[in-house]
Amino acid sequence: MSTPLHVGLIQMEISPETQTNIDTLEAKAEALCNDPRRPQLIIGVEFGIAPHHIEDPEGPAMQRLSRLAARLGVWLVPGSLKLAEPGGGFSNAAPVFAPDGRLAGTYKKMVPWDTDLEKGTLPGRDYLVFDIEKPQVRFGLQICFDADFPEISRTLTLMGAEVLIQLSMDPDSIPDSYQHIKYARAIENQAYYIYMNGACDYGHYHLAGGSLVVSPEGQRIFEAGERPTATIVSLDLDRLRHCRAAGSWDQVAQLQALYDHAPSQPLAGNEQAGALFQRPPFGGTQK
Amino acid sequence: MSTPLHVGLIQMEISPETQTNIDTLEAKAEALCNDPRRPQLIIGVEFGIAPHHIEDPEGPAMQRLSRLAARLGVWLVPGSLKLAEPGGGFSNAAPVFAPDGRLAGTYKKMVPWDTDLEKGTLPGRDYLVFDIEKPQVRFGLQICFDADFPEISRTLTLMGAEVLIQLSMDPDSIPDSYQHIKYARAIENQAYYIYMNGACDYGHYHLAGGSLVVSPEGQRIFEAGERPTATIVSLDLDRLRHCRAAGSWDQVAQLQALYDHAPSQPLAGNEQAGALFQRPPFGGTQK
Repeated sequence: MSTPLHVGLIQMEISPETQTNIDTLEAKAEALCNDPRRPQLIIGVEFGIAPHHIEDPEGPAMQRLSRLAARLGVWLVPGSLKLAEPGGGFSNAAPVFAPDGRLAGTYKKMVPWDTDLEKGTLPGRDYLVFDIEKPQVRFGLQICFDADFPEISRTLTLMGAEVLIQLSMDPDSIPDSYQHIKYARAIENQAYYIYMNGACDYGHYHLAGGSLVVSPEGQRIFEAGERPTATIVSLDLDRLRHCRAAGSWDQVAQLQALYDHAPSQPLAGNEQAGALFQRPPFGGTQK
Repeated sequence: MSTPLHVGLIQMEISPETQTNIDTLEAKAEALCNDPRRPQLIIGVEFGIAPHHIEDPEGPAMQRLSRLAARLGVWLVPGSLKLAEPGGGFSNAAPVFAPDGRLAGTYKKMVPWDTDLEKGTLPGRDYLVFDIEKPQVRFGLQICFDADFPEISRTLTLMGAEVLIQLSMDPDSIPDSYQHIKYARAIENQAYYIYMNGACDYGHYHLAGGSLVVSPEGQRIFEAGERPTATIVSLDLDRLRHCRAAGSWDQVAQLQALYDHAPSQPLAGNEQAGALFQRPPFGGTQK
């Protein structure tokens, strides 16, 4: 493994209290940074920071997280929070802090769950990729239900992302079959795929844990159990780049084939015009 | 199961000889049609008809298949063949015959494997969906490597396909992890997914069988072993339509969310302009 990327994963228990969550994150992140394989990036879970209260973009939670990244000198994707939007309402937002404490970007969930919408979540409109310099690698960020739409992972990949991150808070009532989605996103994009989930009782749900890291060829690198855990996973960027450039096993370089053939997508960006929605059971008038 | 669709699956051994293959298909299709659950559609495998010789669109192989569909009174996707193209060369083509023997369409593989390209296969440009009237249902057809590109299954879905069919001849050297792709295509499109593979020694390969049918919620309905087999699988179209319209289990109606949110895809149809291809290991100059 000639170019390792060490990623700290914090499969967190989530408290209703923002301060409690940041305390938990801080203790676990600090412990990970004391490991000999000091991580370049640490990742939390969806709503791991502020699941209830609406936080201000300049408020104390964001400031504490910025200071934490700077104190540890690490890239930090602490998890998402309800973030106040300028025009009112809030988004499900995942900030990214650089090792100097700078806010490098904030991703806002593009496809909120239906119950999120009912509670007032505003959907995001913008994709987010961010780069680490040493080792040089580009990440793409998405939240939970976003991942069910291959268009989002693909767009992040075409923007150059080599590691796709999904922050979730999935209950154990989600069918096991949905794990296939994570493997497929890795394989079809020849990207490392990092799926992070919460692990605790939460309201009437039990967040199922099972955070997962998949290689660009669809191999399981790491899978957490159902309890809270923090660990470091090392990814081989040379392997990823070889896979993308030259293929591997019985596979060709899929992204090269995408480049060469670029199958036409007459309905992309114009989904509502699809025949699917022009007839029962759709018709575009439900809800 | 109030609206069943009976599909005959012929996981075929493939001979180098076209006549032998059609003889095999004919015997198995006839047996399936004598089953009490008489299938409305019968499906073969990639290159199950003519793996070596280049067939003429009006030639004897196509005429025999047309007569077979008419004699059995069944929709027939017999598998693919090397089909001569008007300007020279050939495509990897899958004809669709209606129960009156009419050629309802021919799908040509859009993303040929790299070794296919070296041998002269021309890529197809057009999507193919086709409808059965009783029970009313729309199918989308793709061949092997096409399925690794979620754009193709998605386009077929937006064209109204409710059952996605993939014809393959995958060797056993393909990693097990690639089965995830089939489940993901079913879930993300809330479609039945039918994967058909050959089952035999073939050149220096062993075609692995393992033909698979997955429900719109990602449940395995049927999975074949590694030997040739012919069977009938019954799909519940009401279940599919309920899943699409109202969701199921802990899932929402994903396609409705696609309609409502239609995440922007700034690079769709313009893949080569992606940042991915502007830097190592790509750059758009390989091959």
